[in-house]
Amino acid sequence: MKAILFDLDDTLFSTTEFAKKARANAIDAMIEVGINATHQEIHDELMEVIREFGSNYSEHFNKLLHRLPPHQRKEVNPAVVVAAGVCAYHDTKFEHLKAFPDVAPFLTALSQARMRTAVITHGWTTKQAEKLVRLGLVPLFGPRDVYISDQVGIAKPNPKLYQYVLRELGLLPSETMYVGDNLAHDIAPPRAIGMHTAWIKRAAKPDQDVEAANPEFIVNDFRELAAILRERFGVPLSEF
Amino acid sequence: MKAILFDLDDTLFSTTEFAKKARANAIDAMIEVGINATHQEIHDELMEVIREFGSNYSEHFNKLLHRLPPHQRKEVNPAVVVAAGVCAYHDTKFEHLKAFPDVAPFLTALSQARMRTAVITHGWTTKQAEKLVRLGLVPLFGPRDVYISDQVGIAKPNPKLYQYVLRELGLLPSETMYVGDNLAHDIAPPRAIGMHTAWIKRAAKPDQDVEAANPEFIVNDFRELAAILRERFGVPLSEF
Repeated sequence: MKAILFDLDDTLFSTTEFAKKARANAIDAMIEVGINATHQEIHDELMEVIREFGSNYSEHFNKLLHRLPPHQRKEVNPAVVVAAGVCAYHDTKFEHLKAFPDVAPFLTALSQARMRTAVITHGWTTKQAEKLVRLGLVPLFGPRDVYISDQVGIAKPNPKLYQYVLRELGLLPSETMYVGDNLAHDIAPPRAIGMHTAWIKRAAKPDQDVEAANPEFIVNDFRELAAILRERFGVPLSEF
Repeated sequence: MKAILFDLDDTLFSTTEFAKKARANAIDAMIEVGINATHQEIHDELMEVIREFGSNYSEHFNKLLHRLPPHQRKEVNPAVVVAAGVCAYHDTKFEHLKAFPDVAPFLTALSQARMRTAVITHGWTTKQAEKLVRLGLVPLFGPRDVYISDQVGIAKPNPKLYQYVLRELGLLPSETMYVGDNLAHDIAPPRAIGMHTAWIKRAAKPDQDVEAANPEFIVNDFRELAAILRERFGVPLSEF
């Protein structure tokens, strides 16, 4: 084993939890600057926008505002409402954005054991790079060992994304392990090209199809993964 | 006199000072994640980018990175460097972003005297709206009384921008006063259409052509402007 490669969202930090709190604060901020609707009404409309346009879309609040009936938004400059929502969303998110507590100790132990590490993440370049910076993960990986699907030009679950990174690192699939929370995106494709795989369950969405993806290892956190690397692959990892 | 209309940047807060500090911190952050150049080298290149592409351009750090010689940037993922710079820039700016201390008392006194107020600002919609939110100025103006050149579709120094706002407010030029720091943008055009004008000098760039713009009043802060409004226009403003 020469390298451990990581998914980012819900693998190195919990996306889902913070997004919920950030959305609630954004809605309150939009009401405060003059949107004439209840929290629930705005929430329902916003969730519809996210479903229809995807969670990586960058104009959620603009679309939301446009969809509200005119009497609920006529007393405001829409740009000010959107800015109030965006500022509250970002402030909340950045305030609460923290890597899981075992991430830094695990990466430090891997580095001491001379194991190569990298991030392979799905999403928009700017957004994913900003998350890595805000989470304080850049010094733990090195700024070159970050692969973002939008930047590479290949999106999960296409196995070519994993093949591209292996070529960049100069490694064979069998020398590497990929760790992620999403079975269809993070486990099935690397497994199909012969990489080792570990499904990390702590923030993973329930009701995923475990049989179809067939992860080689299932762990609840990085201490369990460290034990596997020590016992099954002889990686000399210190305790953390 | 029925309304006092305000410029935003360097009239209600000091842009220049904070932008300088924010830029310096952004440069340090980019060096920290792996740019192999001195602070001075990056600073000089960045100032060239700003001169060539304008201060309102949104891709300064991307362009900067692209312009550095390859050996100074080869060890890094460019998206991570840009994110490090952008995060440091925003954090510094938002931490230091404060309206001048006499802004809130002046606006409160104007509101008590039943004087209408509004902002007419030059710049990009999202950026200017975010400044208003971050400065805490939205509750002082009301979210509808904000006019941004990019959103209106007419840019300073075109006097049509001021005529548009007067039409929206239902006021005659002679019933209003515009207050700003930039003689060519904030004084000459409203004066040309018959509005009253006050040049506020505290954050104003030196060596502007005072004779050409010919401001009706020149003040150093809002206390001096309040005195003029009381004495020359009979506005019943309380002390602050």
